[in-house]
Amino acid sequence: MTSLLASTQILIVIFHAVVGYSYTTNYITVPVDHFSYTNDDVFQLKYLTNNTFWDAKKGPIFFYTGNEAPIESFSKNTGFMWEISKEFRAMVVFAEHRYYGDSMPYGNDSFNDKKKLGYLTSQQAIADFVDVINHLREDSALNRRRPNPVIAFGGSYGGMLAAWLRMKYPAAVEGAIASSAPIWQFTGMTPCNDFHKVTSSVYRNTSVECAETISASWKAIDNVTETGDGKTWLTDNWRLCKPLKDKDDVQLLKNWASEVYVSLAVVNYPYEANFFAPLPANPIKEVCKPMINHAVDDRELLRSVFRGLSVYFNYTESAKCLDTESAYPDEIIKGWNYQACTEMIMPFCANGGEDDIFEAIPWDFESYADYCETQYDVRPNVDDVEKQYGGKNIDAASNIIFSNGLLDPWSSGGVLKSVSFTVRALLIPDAAHHLDLRASHRNDTESVVRARKTIKRWIKMWIHGYWLRK
Amino acid sequence: MTSLLASTQILIVIFHAVVGYSYTTNYITVPVDHFSYTNDDVFQLKYLTNNTFWDAKKGPIFFYTGNEAPIESFSKNTGFMWEISKEFRAMVVFAEHRYYGDSMPYGNDSFNDKKKLGYLTSQQAIADFVDVINHLREDSALNRRRPNPVIAFGGSYGGMLAAWLRMKYPAAVEGAIASSAPIWQFTGMTPCNDFHKVTSSVYRNTSVECAETISASWKAIDNVTETGDGKTWLTDNWRLCKPLKDKDDVQLLKNWASEVYVSLAVVNYPYEANFFAPLPANPIKEVCKPMINHAVDDRELLRSVFRGLSVYFNYTESAKCLDTESAYPDEIIKGWNYQACTEMIMPFCANGGEDDIFEAIPWDFESYADYCETQYDVRPNVDDVEKQYGGKNIDAASNIIFSNGLLDPWSSGGVLKSVSFTVRALLIPDAAHHLDLRASHRNDTESVVRARKTIKRWIKMWIHGYWLRK
Repeated sequence: MTSLLASTQILIVIFHAVVGYSYTTNYITVPVDHFSYTNDDVFQLKYLTNNTFWDAKKGPIFFYTGNEAPIESFSKNTGFMWEISKEFRAMVVFAEHRYYGDSMPYGNDSFNDKKKLGYLTSQQAIADFVDVINHLREDSALNRRRPNPVIAFGGSYGGMLAAWLRMKYPAAVEGAIASSAPIWQFTGMTPCNDFHKVTSSVYRNTSVECAETISASWKAIDNVTETGDGKTWLTDNWRLCKPLKDKDDVQLLKNWASEVYVSLAVVNYPYEANFFAPLPANPIKEVCKPMINHAVDDRELLRSVFRGLSVYFNYTESAKCLDTESAYPDEIIKGWNYQACTEMIMPFCANGGEDDIFEAIPWDFESYADYCETQYDVRPNVDDVEKQYGGKNIDAASNIIFSNGLLDPWSSGGVLKSVSFTVRALLIPDAAHHLDLRASHRNDTESVVRARKTIKRWIKMWIHGYWLRK
Repeated sequence: MTSLLASTQILIVIFHAVVGYSYTTNYITVPVDHFSYTNDDVFQLKYLTNNTFWDAKKGPIFFYTGNEAPIESFSKNTGFMWEISKEFRAMVVFAEHRYYGDSMPYGNDSFNDKKKLGYLTSQQAIADFVDVINHLREDSALNRRRPNPVIAFGGSYGGMLAAWLRMKYPAAVEGAIASSAPIWQFTGMTPCNDFHKVTSSVYRNTSVECAETISASWKAIDNVTETGDGKTWLTDNWRLCKPLKDKDDVQLLKNWASEVYVSLAVVNYPYEANFFAPLPANPIKEVCKPMINHAVDDRELLRSVFRGLSVYFNYTESAKCLDTESAYPDEIIKGWNYQACTEMIMPFCANGGEDDIFEAIPWDFESYADYCETQYDVRPNVDDVEKQYGGKNIDAASNIIFSNGLLDPWSSGGVLKSVSFTVRALLIPDAAHHLDLRASHRNDTESVVRARKTIKRWIKMWIHGYWLRK
């Protein structure tokens, strides 16, 4: 991705520290194309299963609809499913998203050209999941389908997939827990600056002084780096791995800082955690602590900003220097970048207004589209998601919980008001990105504990209703 | 299609006499592939519109989801939509199914090879329809979407598409009238002999003697044609265009007769109509009149059968000879044959039992699959329809009327019991194939008149509910 566009598309995925859940790794043969008959190619899709607590006769199947990363990372970071599997006597399943991890339709060539890469779409991925579910429900001994109900779970893009799976294939899943799923973060559904507005408000609510310091820092960076001497000063004081040479380097640095502020909001959890870099509990609070100098001179201000940012890049005090290259692993970047150039066109912008901690960032569709064309020979299709999944009109859906932590920037594109009796918004005031799906923790706030109880209640109701109709 | 398989896949489409409805012919550019990004090709899809009575501000759009024939034939044979358009102040739209009529993705080459033909699927066709609907709802002057609600209509395969359109894209249509839509005529959903059982019962209910005569005729044909002399006798007495030479010819003749009995049941309308050949009102009654000789000798029996069949092939007394070649036009056959080799695998069989007017016809999947492989380089995918559309589990759907005439063989695969409050079965005891969608006629029975009233009531309710939610 070209440098100046780096901040316009934001990865949703979260990696996290490992907890030991045990699973069996399985593969299923699925068609590369579920919707046409031009291509007979098939490939192996990976999925993880655990049936320690499963009641094979009547127990539900808890099915995580994998998103844009190797599936193991989701199995490790979705402790909620594991924790409730005993009570529900459920099988726990994590299915990988095609073109991520080991589920490559054309092996190492999967990203080589448009003809091979073009099958990377949410609809194809969802149809893969239906194949896995149908396979899990096969009862070869009895030559019939197992009756066990299936509940879909997903966080972030995975939550979008869980919701869409229920909307498009309600015979496959009885209901969906769509946690922090920004299904409305698309053109015409949500103003492009909402995402950064929510982010800004998290900082302001943590500390007005901190928000104002960040706000002022952009101009301070520009001022200081106007001279060669200033660039050297900032390189030294911020311990940059690569010295600042020109305006583009400065822009890259600002992009990096913007991304960091967003990322911190996304993973602003109440306990120590590891998101690319290890972070303390309530990281924004920590980052904000030293950021108290918005009104002083530029260099002093930037020193305090650096102390704040150090919490992110150097919490363990082991970083040699500050590397402003994107921290996202290439294997994810390349899949999501492509999706963001085809279906997943999420316009982001910031208006740099008074309440905003960010500089103005325009949403420049045309240059973005040009980038996509150069990179992948595709034009972004801004209407595709709305066409396929109904956009704001999801009245006809049923049995979906859209849970959103209100500290989470992604809540900007989430469903924050219940759509109907069975399509419900569940707001978690003091939670960041899909905290509810994570394992329970002694630091969990009351609101996330309550949210998990509510989710369990709905799952019970869906399963109960399912058996009543049987 | 090889001859011996001819009776195993039965075309649903009905052509009919022309009534003069006026429309504008339009074309819209749609992608060849709605579900992947490997292929950027687009083509022109045809659709017909009439807005004589349309209230552009609030009037609904009545949208016919075209099935396997040129779209004009459906516009001519769906008088119900035209007739109620005034009362509803509705726009009337008929959208063509890709690979039929003028809507050829690759022009004259569309059927040339698998890479071009493989986009002929119901899901792609339904996505085309969504594009047409979105286009109709564009309000370029106001740069927003028109709020006018859309109601889908379809008969037979078109009815399946209307129902599936509502299931898959409920944001695009408020409800669907799915008339004589055999959405369950698929593997594992309906016994393969149900179709012929319903057909048989229509004959038996018309005249037990007629049913027994047809039943006995198969053996009589075999007996008579055992000798060369007998073949000549049957050729002469049935006025066959091509003399019977061998067993295969005899089998072809029997296939033809079977198809005729089925076709007659499908179009057993209470008034004169024109289905390939012109037919009298209540054609089965007419066909059965001379079929009164089941207990006499073979030749006498076959003479009476011929008098019955003559009602079908020679009602106007202008046929020079009886042609046992399939009466379906090639342009339809070739599209539907392919669909029947990929998604639309409808197993048909007859067990030749006591209550059956047909000889035993096995459902031989393997040889059918071999035929498909030879013909199109595809293997039939028997699970695809169930996977895509949920099979018997359509609990989560809403706002669909499944109307079925109980005289219609296709009712065997229809939804004959209401699924929920808003997914309803509407039975029309004395109606054949989608009679309810046809123009009203003085001979219409009370039950079809009542059914049309019920359908109108539901449409009103859907539209009312739609505006309440707005």
